[in-house]
Amino acid sequence: MNKTDYIIRQIAKSYKKKYENYVVTRIWHLLNNLDIKFVTQQHITRSTGRALTDMYFPQIQLHIEVDESQHHNSDGTQIEQDIVREADIINATGHEIIRISIFTKSLEHGCSLKSIEDINQQIDDVVILINFKLKTLDQTLRIWDIEAEYNPQTYIERGAISVDDNVAFRTIADACNCFGHSYAGYQKASAKHAVDENIMLWFPKLYENSEWENEISLDESEIHEKKRTNHQNYFNEFVKNPANHKKRITFARVKSNLGDVMYRFKGVYMFDKQASECVGKVIYKRESVKVDTCKPIATQSDAIS
Amino acid sequence: MNKTDYIIRQIAKSYKKKYENYVVTRIWHLLNNLDIKFVTQQHITRSTGRALTDMYFPQIQLHIEVDESQHHNSDGTQIEQDIVREADIINATGHEIIRISIFTKSLEHGCSLKSIEDINQQIDDVVILINFKLKTLDQTLRIWDIEAEYNPQTYIERGAISVDDNVAFRTIADACNCFGHSYAGYQKASAKHAVDENIMLWFPKLYENSEWENEISLDESEIHEKKRTNHQNYFNEFVKNPANHKKRITFARVKSNLGDVMYRFKGVYMFDKQASECVGKVIYKRESVKVDTCKPIATQSDAIS
Repeated sequence: MNKTDYIIRQIAKSYKKKYENYVVTRIWHLLNNLDIKFVTQQHITRSTGRALTDMYFPQIQLHIEVDESQHHNSDGTQIEQDIVREADIINATGHEIIRISIFTKSLEHGCSLKSIEDINQQIDDVVILINFKLKTLDQTLRIWDIEAEYNPQTYIERGAISVDDNVAFRTIADACNCFGHSYAGYQKASAKHAVDENIMLWFPKLYENSEWENEISLDESEIHEKKRTNHQNYFNEFVKNPANHKKRITFARVKSNLGDVMYRFKGVYMFDKQASECVGKVIYKRESVKVDTCKPIATQSDAIS
Repeated sequence: MNKTDYIIRQIAKSYKKKYENYVVTRIWHLLNNLDIKFVTQQHITRSTGRALTDMYFPQIQLHIEVDESQHHNSDGTQIEQDIVREADIINATGHEIIRISIFTKSLEHGCSLKSIEDINQQIDDVVILINFKLKTLDQTLRIWDIEAEYNPQTYIERGAISVDDNVAFRTIADACNCFGHSYAGYQKASAKHAVDENIMLWFPKLYENSEWENEISLDESEIHEKKRTNHQNYFNEFVKNPANHKKRITFARVKSNLGDVMYRFKGVYMFDKQASECVGKVIYKRESVKVDTCKPIATQSDAIS
């Protein structure tokens, strides 16, 4: 995907709400900077639940909410209960949320549309804020490189992958190649770590599907796994087999908000025997939100020899 | 209607085509000037036929066309045959049309999406052009006053209404009040000129409807009128009655491109007996594209006394 296609498709998602497209396009065109990445209709998990924000700037972890209704939740976002199943959900801990309000509200006069000058002023203030935040960024984070973002090489060079960076790959092979492999293609839902035999790579569907009743907790610290059929058998075998008890570098299978399948890094999880036996489901607990990457092993031995 | 509502509704019409919304919003937000009026999806008549342009700036008579298909007419616009019936069509003689192309075209390599840098550069050039053209305008034309535009007083003060100014009123009464009346409401399709008894005011539907088979020629120099039933009777009576042969200050009933009924000034027309008898339809020919306005007659006599 090139930036033209990406940008146009992101903006097209803002057609859903009447004023959202105006706000999203004004922010984007006034920023006027192709180094800035943005996402529209971003699903996030927050302490209060899952929500959908209208525009998100991942480099500075800033969300924009366009307030165009008269009724809001106390925290100003629309809490979504149902449509999050396969959605690409990022964890918004520590993110900032700015709200653009389209209507004035007063107890006496009810709700009325704000002037275009007022709406523009709010947006212009956001643009100033975004530009200010970008200035404080590390040089490498300041540039949106749409190819590098999905390239394992980028993370091998960085030395680690972190949940805070919202890393997602287009294929399982790309994720594997951050941990010593040189796969051209790979289809299975788990793989070995090419260097450390105590670690495995895992690519689960963390939502209900034909085979599994999986879920991830709101704070993403726990994954629950349950098979739809013959669960008890599966559970007993799982508990017995030490190969399952390795650390799991976990990339959840998600639908990106443009509709493509992607594998998003969720952290390193580990089977929790006690918790699992207590509820009769396989429970994994997160041990780390960051994991070291490594070069392809062939290249490594070349370097050593 | 206020500007917030007008602008948002105009932009919302650009959701139809994939790249059009990007171009329209970028031009608008980079102009960043609430004194500039724009119209999206403007119907125009040109020498080559009727067309729909993507964005129109009436103050400087400039149209923007977003080229996002691989097939074009020789003049680059989409000629519309059917949906123009009630549409608000302006006459584009002398207007300028600028095209933004989204795809590169080469005989060897076919069609490919241009880079976002290339598309942005084309748009930025248009923004410079629009700002340049605005600077050369008369001070009174430089400011988009959404209320004054539809207010008869504006045209009384100017002393005339011209086709070139694309004047349209919200009600028949507002049109009448440019010619000496002080109507609060008026519903009929014709009215007297309050000062000059040789002139009448006319508000026809210039498209096929349940009662009439009317049409206006592409260059708007001729109006043809035919009744659906008992036309011959109507025609004979019409030709005999000299009251019908007055000059007609003509405001056509149209649907504005936001869907509201409006009355657009088309010029001063006059019955042409010879042409009418030749084809058996009532034919009016345009005598003038400009007409003098006058103050309400009560006010005039006040001023005289």
